[in-house]
Order: sequence, then structure tokens, then C-alpha cells
Amino acid sequence: MIAKHVPNETIDRLFKYFRCLTCFLREGNDIVSSKELAEVCHIKPAMVRKDFSYFGELGTRGVGYDIVDLISNIRKILKLDRKINVALVGIGNIGSALLEHSSFELDGFGITMAFDNDPSKIGKTVGTVTIEDVTSMPERIRSMGIHLVILAVPENAATKVAKLLKKADLKSILSFAPCELGMQDDIQVTCIDLSVEMARLVYYSSVEYREKVV
Amino acid sequence: MIAKHVPNETIDRLFKYFRCLTCFLREGNDIVSSKELAEVCHIKPAMVRKDFSYFGELGTRGVGYDIVDLISNIRKILKLDRKINVALVGIGNIGSALLEHSSFELDGFGITMAFDNDPSKIGKTVGTVTIEDVTSMPERIRSMGIHLVILAVPENAATKVAKLLKKADLKSILSFAPCELGMQDDIQVTCIDLSVEMARLVYYSSVEYREKVV
Repeated sequence: MIAKHVPNETIDRLFKYFRCLTCFLREGNDIVSSKELAEVCHIKPAMVRKDFSYFGELGTRGVGYDIVDLISNIRKILKLDRKINVALVGIGNIGSALLEHSSFELDGFGITMAFDNDPSKIGKTVGTVTIEDVTSMPERIRSMGIHLVILAVPENAATKVAKLLKKADLKSILSFAPCELGMQDDIQVTCIDLSVEMARLVYYSSVEYREKVV
Repeated sequence: MIAKHVPNETIDRLFKYFRCLTCFLREGNDIVSSKELAEVCHIKPAMVRKDFSYFGELGTRGVGYDIVDLISNIRKILKLDRKINVALVGIGNIGSALLEHSSFELDGFGITMAFDNDPSKIGKTVGTVTIEDVTSMPERIRSMGIHLVILAVPENAATKVAKLLKKADLKSILSFAPCELGMQDDIQVTCIDLSVEMARLVYYSSVEYREKVV
């Protein structure tokens, strides 16, 4: 369904549109205009229309886009129309929060396996998931055909766990560990480093501020 | 200390270098070469050298950079050499995890205030922080001179809390709520939407995979 020439920037914006559209829908709207969608995404309406035109979504002039249709089409384009099983490694504060978090927004996702190295946690069940020993992780992840792992281990354990993960047949890792994992290039790694995000916010907001008061 | 012509891309990479350098230091290293740093950051050594040259950091040819000096200089450049107080709004799973999280990696940050609307949580103390009523938040945040808020409220409360936050004199928000907050343009907002991050990972890793097997 995806034409070769669709730029990554458009794909990235589709994720954003998707998030905003589900909000619009929840707030009781049926129809959205490119202007409204552009406004919440801080871009120009023409860009919204151009992005959607790649996929033949032209809306109705003077009316707008049907939100349910649009969401359904974006789900297909972004491959969100299937169930994705996720393994979670590290059941500390952040890991527990994720595991107890009732459901992820994009309902196709579900944590179906969880691992830790703490004997007091191994064997416990949270929701429908029983925490397993991290040493059996590579084999268990491979056998369940899971390709996406959330890594929520402390920084000093990250390198060790990363080595174990190399033995699993992974495609992608979402990591909360603030260190580089040194994974193979064919594994997509996204790092969420809260401190760096905060530092970046402080830096850019103070620069903005300074420029304004000068 | 920052020259006007330093591109934002360099600033962004400095945050990454900073994170990697603290890892190198913790692993017992004193000196790092541009090649080593480039490798963990997945960029070219020449780019590392160019980025550092903006700030007169030239290292020693054939030896490398002194890690402690480099970290100290980057802290100054990125304004990480001061204490930043942070207010946390929403003490659910993610919020509790953040509040209990011993310390943020960049040690200048600390959560010094916390707010919720749940009477069973208000008044409780976690570490050194007592959870306060969210209705008093704008005034309390202003009076304490806090400019950075972490928003960890459920999605259906985000819009309401965002309205309250407009009354505080904020500069930046780090939000885990998956909705647009509609804040003024002079407030920097960074959204961390875990589901979207996961969806993005799955999408891009499957595209990569397809391109490889074709």
C-alpha cells in the first residue's frame, strides 16, 4: 500500500496525525478539516493535504475528512492494524508502571512477556503476565516470535542485558537505559532518556527566553 | 559562551555526547578519541571534531580528549551546571516511578514538588516530596519559581490540567499524555508517547526488514 516515494517525514507526521485524530474522535468529533488538524500539529494545512494525498485521501472540499475512515486508513499504512506482542525486560519502577499501565493507546500493542533477575520478582504475576528469569530470555523471546523489546533495566545492567538480547532474534528495542547498547545495525533502537529530554527542554526554553528579552 | 552560529544539530549532538561521555567515565576511562565517541554515536569522527571545535575543544592529536574536562565544558555549554527544580503533576504509575526514581542521570535535576487530585494521595510524602492538591498548583509553582513541569496525568485529565498550567509561569513541559496540550507558543512542550514510539519502531524495523529480504 505504501508507494516507494513517500518521504519519511510524511510517515513521521502520520504518527502524529494518528494521535491527534484519536483525540478528536474521543472528544466526540466525526469530521476534521485539514486546518484543524494542522493547527494542533503546528504545521500548515497544505502539508496535511499533501501528506494525505500520497494515500489518495482527499477528503471532501468544504467539509473535511471523515475521522473514522482516516484513522482506519492510517492504521493500515502504519501497519497498526495487527497485534504486536512486546517483551519487557526489567521490572523496576518504570517497568512496573508499564506493566500495570492498563493498555497502550494504540491498542495493537501488548506486553505479553516480562523478565527480571530479582528472585523475589521472578514467578510473580502482574495482570496476565508472569515475570520470568532473565537468563532464559533470549530463548523464550525467540520461541514466542517476539521482535520488540522494552528495556527498562538500570543503567549498570544495560550492557549485560544488551549482550543477552543479541541472542534473541529482535528487530527493535525501546530503551529507557541512558547508555548506548551497541546493538547490531539491523536492530532499531529508540532511547528515551528522561534526563536528556528535560535538559534539552531547559536549554531550548532558556535560549528562546534570552532571545525574547534581549 | 555559545556563539550565535552554532547549529541546533550540534547542540542536539552535545546532549548525546554528554550521555556517552558519562558512560565512558563510569566504565573507568579517562581519555576518549573522536573515533570512539563517533562510533557509539553512529556518526563520523570528523563531525565530532567539528562539533567540539565550535567551543575550542581540540583535544590532543594522537591522544584524544580528557573526558572529565569535556564533560565539564559540555555541562557549561548546555547550562547543566546549575540546579533545576521540577514539578511533577499526576502521581499514577508513571508519576510514582519518576518520583521514586532515586536520581536523574544529569544530577542538576530534582523533582521538588508533586501534585495530584486524588484525596488519598494528597498529603502523602514520597522521599522528601509531599504530594499537594492540584488545584493549588499554578500558585505554588509560580511562588517556587519552577519553570519545568513533568505532566504524567491520564489522557482524559490532560486538557484540564493544561488549562491550570497556563496560569503558572512555565517555560517547558515534558508530557507523557498522548494528546496535544494547546499551550502558548512560548512554552516548550516535549511529548513522550510510548505507544507512538513503539509503533514507529515496528514500522521502521519492518520496512528495513522488507528492504533487506527483497
